[in-house]
Amino acid sequence: MLKDCDWIVTQDTQRRVLRNASVRINDGRIEEVGNVKALAKDEVLDCKRKVLIPGLINTHTHLSMTLFRGYADDLELRDWLEKKIWPLEKRLTGEMCYRGALLGGLEMTRTGTTCFVDMYFHMEKVAKAVDESGLRGVLSYGIVDPPDKDGIERQRQYTLKFLKHVTEMRNPRISFAVGPHAPYTCGEETLLWSKDLAEKEDTLVNIHIAETRGEQAQFEREKKARVVDYLDKIGFLCDRVLAAHSVWLTKSEVKLFGKKGVRVAHCPVSNMKLASGGATPVPEMWEAGVPVGLGTDGPASNNGLDMFDTMKMAALVHKNSRWDPTVANAQKVLDMATIEGARCIGREKELGSVEVGKRADLVLLDLRDPNLIPIHRKETVVSDLVYSANGYNVDTTIVDGELLMVNRKFQNLDREKIEEGVRLSVAELIPQ
Amino acid sequence: MLKDCDWIVTQDTQRRVLRNASVRINDGRIEEVGNVKALAKDEVLDCKRKVLIPGLINTHTHLSMTLFRGYADDLELRDWLEKKIWPLEKRLTGEMCYRGALLGGLEMTRTGTTCFVDMYFHMEKVAKAVDESGLRGVLSYGIVDPPDKDGIERQRQYTLKFLKHVTEMRNPRISFAVGPHAPYTCGEETLLWSKDLAEKEDTLVNIHIAETRGEQAQFEREKKARVVDYLDKIGFLCDRVLAAHSVWLTKSEVKLFGKKGVRVAHCPVSNMKLASGGATPVPEMWEAGVPVGLGTDGPASNNGLDMFDTMKMAALVHKNSRWDPTVANAQKVLDMATIEGARCIGREKELGSVEVGKRADLVLLDLRDPNLIPIHRKETVVSDLVYSANGYNVDTTIVDGELLMVNRKFQNLDREKIEEGVRLSVAELIPQ
Repeated sequence: MLKDCDWIVTQDTQRRVLRNASVRINDGRIEEVGNVKALAKDEVLDCKRKVLIPGLINTHTHLSMTLFRGYADDLELRDWLEKKIWPLEKRLTGEMCYRGALLGGLEMTRTGTTCFVDMYFHMEKVAKAVDESGLRGVLSYGIVDPPDKDGIERQRQYTLKFLKHVTEMRNPRISFAVGPHAPYTCGEETLLWSKDLAEKEDTLVNIHIAETRGEQAQFEREKKARVVDYLDKIGFLCDRVLAAHSVWLTKSEVKLFGKKGVRVAHCPVSNMKLASGGATPVPEMWEAGVPVGLGTDGPASNNGLDMFDTMKMAALVHKNSRWDPTVANAQKVLDMATIEGARCIGREKELGSVEVGKRADLVLLDLRDPNLIPIHRKETVVSDLVYSANGYNVDTTIVDGELLMVNRKFQNLDREKIEEGVRLSVAELIPQ
Repeated sequence: MLKDCDWIVTQDTQRRVLRNASVRINDGRIEEVGNVKALAKDEVLDCKRKVLIPGLINTHTHLSMTLFRGYADDLELRDWLEKKIWPLEKRLTGEMCYRGALLGGLEMTRTGTTCFVDMYFHMEKVAKAVDESGLRGVLSYGIVDPPDKDGIERQRQYTLKFLKHVTEMRNPRISFAVGPHAPYTCGEETLLWSKDLAEKEDTLVNIHIAETRGEQAQFEREKKARVVDYLDKIGFLCDRVLAAHSVWLTKSEVKLFGKKGVRVAHCPVSNMKLASGGATPVPEMWEAGVPVGLGTDGPASNNGLDMFDTMKMAALVHKNSRWDPTVANAQKVLDMATIEGARCIGREKELGSVEVGKRADLVLLDLRDPNLIPIHRKETVVSDLVYSANGYNVDTTIVDGELLMVNRKFQNLDREKIEEGVRLSVAELIPQ
């Protein structure tokens, strides 16, 4: 039982914020919210001077890339990829991906993210890290079509093997998604195969769409169509597609997303840092009924996994680009990081809010921290979360009712061991 | 003595980053840097697993407004000021300003800012808070010309009274600046009076310039001149002027700043949040030789005082608006928050870097925090500070050799007492 929280930001349909309220957790789910009486059998966590929020949902990252944090910054996208990131990725082993994912898990736990969507290689190893970290992960193997037919078949086998692996893990916190990397790295056949597999397995297609102007230019040149129009024409768009970035969309492409039920993982920090240019048309997406979540993207282009940082940036970038301070208000932004994030992964009935019956993925922030003083009234708590808080104000992180961090102490991850593993991996990957 | 820092980011002229190095402090100054042997008399602070940087310099804020944090967000600038902020400010007492400034001091200490430039009312009370907090402040009373002649004289008397107060405090950490609020709130006479006083007292003129398009439009309409051209014509521009914001400048106005030696306090978070629009022409300022520092602006429009947040935003907003990821690189941005900030307040010989003879204003960050793992090599430490770090990674803050926070414990400020003071002030200011 989480007793006597100063505030509970429920993110329920009425977006209620409760004062001096408690939550009872039973069997990994939220059993009661509000004026809850402690029972003799309850284990009680005192939550005075804390605000309880739903665990944050990071809808787009590449967790193992935490190993590359800070390795190469302030570069043109092409230089960054071709000279820095790809050469490293060629040398990555499964063990390294495991170590990087554990470090990422440590940072997410520290900063209040309880669920994330990932795409990378060596995903069995990422799944192992998620299993150990206690976090919730939607994991996809990143499919890139190689030039040869055999290669394409091999990529499919990797995905199917990973699906089998996830199924056999039987860990309810770990789920499988199909991960065709992008329309410019996967041919029509692979894209449709991915969609079919997602339908068969009742899961998501996790894909990068229209991150750069270059991608749109390439499609206009080669396919005589905008990327989204092309994807529509081949029959790829549907409500299983989670489209990361989606920066360079026209209004009509946004409307097509709305019509087909496509969801978007908006990654403002990464887009700004890599200077994708422009601004993702998020207000137009809302207007078109597109569910929009937030993602940090990989820590090589952010350089962190702090969703509070991403929330603030999301609010500010849209105000700035529209010259309108009322756009992307705090409530809309918190929605993206919680209930709308849940909607993006098709789990809004289970995740994303503090409501009876939902999974107990919960986060507490410490209101004694100076940057969270004062809190003026119920209506401003959400504003404080988006504009004033940072991930290090989180002091307790809970997934499925399990305590992953309490009073800033990690409960199941061994910080020192993870750090040592990262040190060894980096030394092997990047000899000095 | 700060012994065995993993890294020291010196910010000296060669921007050296030292590995496994130490610093000896004597009488408030840095006496030795590098391979320093501990002497028997030395008090030693073990700095293993820490990075030492110069204390950050916040070149523009309104500290007492920490009371208003989160009170009114997502509003048009005019609504925000007229309906929310100004009515509150009319009711502010000196005691409230003192409480707000103490809270701001607590947050700056927590997040590694050691020196700041302030403009507000009741500045004697702000000075009292700075005195108690142990921080370094450059303080100015915000002069706004009232409609009547007597009022103008009264404003000048406030400034002179505050000057006398600061002089009598004889606290070397507290210095006086003249604070004409802005060209649109102060007439020519007040502006020139301010400049003359600054020259006589050998100090700064702290002023807001060209924060909004509206200000430029007003000057073009009323004075038939751009703001900076007008200020030049009346003979106001000189190397004592610290111009906050300076968002809406033409290239020729930027060049005029360069020619006259004007310095700029760039406030990216506040500008984005209030949707000032556009992007401050910082790269053009660098080209014109204008010293540019960073400011958070007041916590009512940020909503915090974390200079790490401001550094990241500064790097990202320029990359994003120029579509160029190489602009505003990590080193340039850290410079703004340290040595260039010192240059903005005319104290580059004393502050802003870890060098022998400078004041011991120093900050340590904890490298065990997951978001600061791994650090790849000497060249990437600066990148990690700008893109990965946040203010809560700071674990030790030192001003003039005095420990203000050690291992995240405040040494001289009483967090609980400050919080209670803020609670009382807010209750009085904003009855529920």
